[in-house]
Amino acid sequence: MSLWLGRVTVIPKPSVNDPQGLAVLDGLHALGFSEVEQVRVGRHIDVRLDAEGAEEAEARLCQMCETLLANTLIESYEVQVQPVQEGAAV
Amino acid sequence: MSLWLGRVTVIPKPSVNDPQGLAVLDGLHALGFSEVEQVRVGRHIDVRLDAEGAEEAEARLCQMCETLLANTLIESYEVQVQPVQEGAAV
Repeated sequence: MSLWLGRVTVIPKPSVNDPQGLAVLDGLHALGFSEVEQVRVGRHIDVRLDAEGAEEAEARLCQMCETLLANTLIESYEVQVQPVQEGAAV
Repeated sequence: MSLWLGRVTVIPKPSVNDPQGLAVLDGLHALGFSEVEQVRVGRHIDVRLDAEGAEEAEARLCQMCETLLANTLIESYEVQVQPVQEGAAV
Protein backbone atom coordinates (compact mmCIF):
# COMPACT_ATOMS: atom_id res chain seq x y z
CA MET A 1 0.00 0.00 0.00
CA SER A 2 1.27 3.46 -0.79
CA LEU A 3 -0.06 6.97 -0.40
CA TRP A 4 -1.81 8.79 -3.25
CA LEU A 5 -3.20 12.26 -3.72
CA GLY A 6 -6.50 12.41 -5.56
CA ARG A 7 -7.33 15.82 -6.99
CA VAL A 8 -11.08 15.98 -7.52
CA THR A 9 -12.84 18.77 -9.42
CA VAL A 10 -16.62 19.11 -9.20
CA ILE A 11 -18.29 21.63 -11.49
CA PRO A 12 -21.96 22.39 -12.33
CA LYS A 13 -23.09 20.86 -15.65
CA PRO A 14 -23.37 23.36 -18.53
CA SER A 15 -27.20 23.34 -18.48
CA VAL A 16 -27.39 24.12 -14.74
CA ASN A 17 -27.75 27.68 -13.41
CA ASP A 18 -24.68 28.89 -11.52
CA PRO A 19 -25.57 32.05 -9.54
CA GLN A 20 -22.18 31.99 -7.79
CA GLY A 21 -20.45 32.08 -11.18
CA LEU A 22 -22.63 35.02 -12.28
CA ALA A 23 -21.75 36.90 -9.08
CA VAL A 24 -18.02 36.33 -9.66
CA LEU A 25 -18.42 37.44 -13.31
CA ASP A 26 -20.06 40.69 -12.16
CA GLY A 27 -17.30 41.22 -9.60
CA LEU A 28 -14.56 40.72 -12.19
CA HIS A 29 -16.24 43.15 -14.60
CA ALA A 30 -16.57 45.72 -11.79
CA LEU A 31 -12.81 45.36 -11.12
CA GLY A 32 -11.99 46.07 -14.78
CA PHE A 33 -11.55 42.53 -16.11
CA SER A 34 -13.85 43.23 -19.05
CA GLU A 35 -12.32 40.44 -21.17
CA VAL A 36 -14.02 37.76 -19.05
CA GLU A 37 -16.99 36.15 -20.82
CA GLN A 38 -18.14 33.41 -18.49
CA VAL A 39 -17.38 32.06 -15.01
CA ARG A 40 -18.40 28.72 -13.50
CA VAL A 41 -17.71 28.04 -9.84
CA GLY A 42 -17.32 24.54 -8.45
CA ARG A 43 -15.39 22.69 -5.76
CA HIS A 44 -11.90 21.30 -5.59
CA ILE A 45 -11.23 18.45 -3.17
CA ASP A 46 -7.78 17.05 -2.39
CA VAL A 47 -8.07 13.51 -0.99
CA ARG A 48 -5.06 11.70 0.44
CA LEU A 49 -5.60 7.95 0.51
CA ASP A 50 -3.88 4.56 0.71
CA ALA A 51 -4.13 2.28 -2.32
CA GLU A 52 -2.24 -0.53 -4.07
CA GLY A 53 -1.79 1.55 -7.21
CA ALA A 54 -2.98 4.57 -9.19
CA GLU A 55 -5.81 2.62 -10.85
CA GLU A 56 -7.22 1.41 -7.54
CA ALA A 57 -6.95 4.94 -6.10
CA GLU A 58 -8.79 6.38 -9.09
CA ALA A 59 -11.55 3.76 -8.90
CA ARG A 60 -12.09 4.45 -5.18
CA LEU A 61 -12.13 8.21 -5.78
CA CYS A 62 -14.81 7.78 -8.45
CA GLN A 63 -16.88 5.80 -5.92
CA MET A 64 -16.43 8.66 -3.41
CA CYS A 65 -17.61 11.15 -6.04
CA GLU A 66 -20.68 9.06 -6.86
CA THR A 67 -21.67 8.63 -3.21
CA LEU A 68 -20.64 11.84 -1.45
CA LEU A 69 -18.40 14.35 -3.22
CA ALA A 70 -20.57 15.23 -6.23
CA ASN A 71 -24.27 15.47 -6.99
CA THR A 72 -24.11 13.75 -10.37
CA LEU A 73 -27.59 14.96 -11.31
CA ILE A 74 -26.36 18.54 -11.65
CA GLU A 75 -22.56 18.30 -11.36
CA SER A 76 -19.80 16.58 -13.29
CA TYR A 77 -16.50 15.54 -11.78
CA GLU A 78 -12.90 14.87 -12.83
CA VAL A 79 -10.36 12.82 -10.89
CA GLN A 80 -6.58 13.03 -11.17
CA VAL A 81 -4.24 10.83 -9.14
CA GLN A 82 -0.61 11.42 -8.28
CA PRO A 83 1.79 9.72 -5.84
CA VAL A 84 2.48 11.46 -2.53
CA GLN A 85 6.09 11.96 -1.51
CA GLU A 86 6.67 10.81 2.06
CA GLY A 87 6.51 13.69 4.51
CA ALA A 88 4.88 16.10 2.08
CA ALA A 89 1.95 18.13 3.39
CA VAL A 90 -1.22 18.44 1.32
CA MET B 1 -7.76 38.01 -29.69
CA SER B 2 -8.84 34.44 -29.05
CA LEU B 3 -10.82 32.66 -26.38
CA TRP B 4 -9.12 30.85 -23.50
CA LEU B 5 -10.32 28.74 -20.61
CA GLY B 6 -8.58 29.41 -17.32
CA ARG B 7 -8.92 26.63 -14.77
CA VAL B 8 -8.29 28.09 -11.34
CA THR B 9 -7.89 26.01 -8.18
CA VAL B 10 -8.00 27.71 -4.78
CA ILE B 11 -7.12 25.62 -1.74
CA PRO B 12 -6.52 26.46 1.95
CA LYS B 13 -2.83 26.62 2.85
CA PRO B 14 -1.50 23.60 4.80
CA SER B 15 -1.29 25.51 8.10
CA VAL B 16 -4.91 26.73 7.90
CA ASN B 17 -7.78 24.87 9.59
CA ASP B 18 -10.22 23.31 7.12
CA PRO B 19 -13.43 22.31 8.95
CA GLN B 20 -15.15 21.48 5.66
CA GLY B 21 -12.36 19.03 4.84
CA LEU B 22 -12.69 17.40 8.29
CA ALA B 23 -16.45 17.03 7.77
CA VAL B 24 -15.92 15.37 4.38
CA LEU B 25 -13.26 13.09 5.93
CA ASP B 26 -15.74 11.99 8.63
CA GLY B 27 -18.40 11.43 5.96
CA LEU B 28 -16.08 9.27 3.84
CA HIS B 29 -15.07 7.19 6.87
CA ALA B 30 -18.74 6.71 7.81
CA LEU B 31 -19.39 5.45 4.26
CA GLY B 32 -16.62 2.85 4.55
CA PHE B 33 -13.77 4.67 2.80
CA SER B 34 -11.39 3.93 5.68
CA GLU B 35 -8.29 4.29 3.47
CA VAL B 36 -8.72 8.08 3.32
CA GLU B 37 -6.18 9.93 5.50
CA GLN B 38 -6.81 13.59 4.80
CA VAL B 39 -9.23 15.81 2.88
CA ARG B 40 -8.84 19.49 1.97
CA VAL B 41 -11.75 21.32 0.36
CA GLY B 42 -11.27 24.35 -1.85
CA ARG B 43 -12.83 26.02 -4.88
CA HIS B 44 -12.54 25.41 -8.58
CA ILE B 45 -13.28 28.31 -10.92
CA ASP B 46 -13.51 28.03 -14.71
CA VAL B 47 -12.96 31.44 -16.31
CA ARG B 48 -13.53 31.97 -20.04
CA LEU B 49 -11.71 35.06 -21.29
CA ASP B 50 -10.36 36.82 -24.36
CA ALA B 51 -6.59 37.26 -24.61
CA GLU B 52 -3.82 37.63 -27.20
CA GLY B 53 -2.14 34.43 -26.05
CA ALA B 54 -1.81 31.88 -23.27
CA GLU B 55 0.78 33.92 -21.39
CA GLU B 56 -1.42 37.04 -21.33
CA ALA B 57 -4.41 34.94 -20.24
CA GLU B 58 -2.38 33.39 -17.41
CA ALA B 59 -1.08 36.78 -16.24
CA ARG B 60 -4.61 38.23 -16.15
CA LEU B 61 -5.93 35.18 -14.31
CA CYS B 62 -3.21 35.58 -11.66
CA GLN B 63 -4.30 39.23 -11.23
CA MET B 64 -7.92 38.03 -10.80
CA CYS B 65 -6.77 35.55 -8.14
CA GLU B 66 -4.82 38.23 -6.26
CA THR B 67 -7.72 40.71 -6.28
CA LEU B 68 -10.90 38.60 -6.06
CA LEU B 69 -10.74 34.85 -6.54
CA ALA B 70 -8.41 33.89 -3.68
CA ASN B 71 -7.62 35.16 -0.20
CA THR B 72 -3.85 34.82 -0.48
CA LEU B 73 -3.40 35.19 3.27
CA ILE B 74 -4.94 31.78 3.90
CA GLU B 75 -5.32 30.23 0.43
CA SER B 76 -2.99 29.29 -2.39
CA TYR B 77 -4.02 29.12 -6.02
CA GLU B 78 -3.02 27.38 -9.24
CA VAL B 79 -3.86 28.55 -12.76
CA GLN B 80 -3.98 26.41 -15.91
CA VAL B 81 -4.83 27.84 -19.33
CA GLN B 82 -6.11 26.01 -22.38
CA PRO B 83 -7.56 27.23 -25.71
CA VAL B 84 -11.35 27.11 -26.13
CA GLN B 85 -12.71 25.43 -29.25
CA GLU B 86 -15.29 27.66 -30.93
CA GLY B 87 -18.82 26.72 -29.96
CA ALA B 88 -17.77 24.59 -27.00
CA ALA B 89 -19.72 25.09 -23.76
CA VAL B 90 -17.83 25.46 -20.49
